[in-house]
Amino acid sequence: MKVYLAGPEVFLPNAREVLDRKIDLTRRYGFTPVSPGDLEVPAIDTKRGKGLAISSINERLMMSADMIIANLTPFRGVAADVGTAFELGFMCARDCPAYAFSNVVGDHFTRVAALHDGDIRPDAHGRPRGPDGLAVEDFDMVDNLMLDGGIAVRGGTVVTRKVDPGKLYTDHQAFEECLRLAADRFLK
Amino acid sequence: MKVYLAGPEVFLPNAREVLDRKIDLTRRYGFTPVSPGDLEVPAIDTKRGKGLAISSINERLMMSADMIIANLTPFRGVAADVGTAFELGFMCARDCPAYAFSNVVGDHFTRVAALHDGDIRPDAHGRPRGPDGLAVEDFDMVDNLMLDGGIAVRGGTVVTRKVDPGKLYTDHQAFEECLRLAADRFLK
Repeated sequence: MKVYLAGPEVFLPNAREVLDRKIDLTRRYGFTPVSPGDLEVPAIDTKRGKGLAISSINERLMMSADMIIANLTPFRGVAADVGTAFELGFMCARDCPAYAFSNVVGDHFTRVAALHDGDIRPDAHGRPRGPDGLAVEDFDMVDNLMLDGGIAVRGGTVVTRKVDPGKLYTDHQAFEECLRLAADRFLK
Repeated sequence: MKVYLAGPEVFLPNAREVLDRKIDLTRRYGFTPVSPGDLEVPAIDTKRGKGLAISSINERLMMSADMIIANLTPFRGVAADVGTAFELGFMCARDCPAYAFSNVVGDHFTRVAALHDGDIRPDAHGRPRGPDGLAVEDFDMVDNLMLDGGIAVRGGTVVTRKVDPGKLYTDHQAFEECLRLAADRFLK
């Protein structure tokens, strides 16, 4: 069973090392890892051409996979990396089992409330809104309901864990818990 | 041809009005609109149950659609709304044509550079990185390469437009340009 390893680890200075560790852990739990960066990007002249080539490689890798484990740890803000969210949606549409983890505890509502220094008030319909007027989802979910919902309806779990702030993208314990849950479900 | 209208407009105080305007414009260009909020959410006791119900409705709406137009205008930070990114990935996996727009001009690189007050430097391999060590994608793309790439490979376009700051989520001109492009391609 092939597992696509989605997440913003590709942006880390030590991306290769971190991805290799995830690949190694995935194998230890009995799965075949499929990881962005597995294939060589061809030499292409333009920036945009290179970006398109990487996108195409990653789509091909996802098409070869049977399951996804997505790292939804907030990235440059209050929400998950949008590339990872795209990939999670992609694999959900293929009806693949989906798991996810975040190395930040506290749900979506808590993070958006913190962004607004707690200034969240109910509107006339009781719907919580920030000072910008935008509604704040309050569904006891780790991130946007499409992400949590897509995972849940396919039998998956979002594992959260508080880690050392310096290990936000490199602590693998929540990731490993996803592997454990998936192995219990599919490989026992 | 049914078009799923993805975007963070659902969070606006005047969401219904804005969605109705998008629905109306979609019909004017000859498409059948499919919009989050089209179906009634059943009464459910728990917050999480309600979130799951909305997710399930939106997935069903996407499964009924043939194309997506996604609003990638940055939302609570430098990137698109993650729910919209999920939906874009979902529709790309179904191999539906995908279009997108952003009411912010300037590419992903420019926005992340601004987030870091311009402090972006090449690493030893020439890859641009912020002071946090994270690589900054520099592919002449509006957002993460999976989003731009998924749209491009399916023949779509990401339309960007500078709008009045007060109309960031309510100016429909870039959205309308997506409708125009899609109508020229599919309805002529």
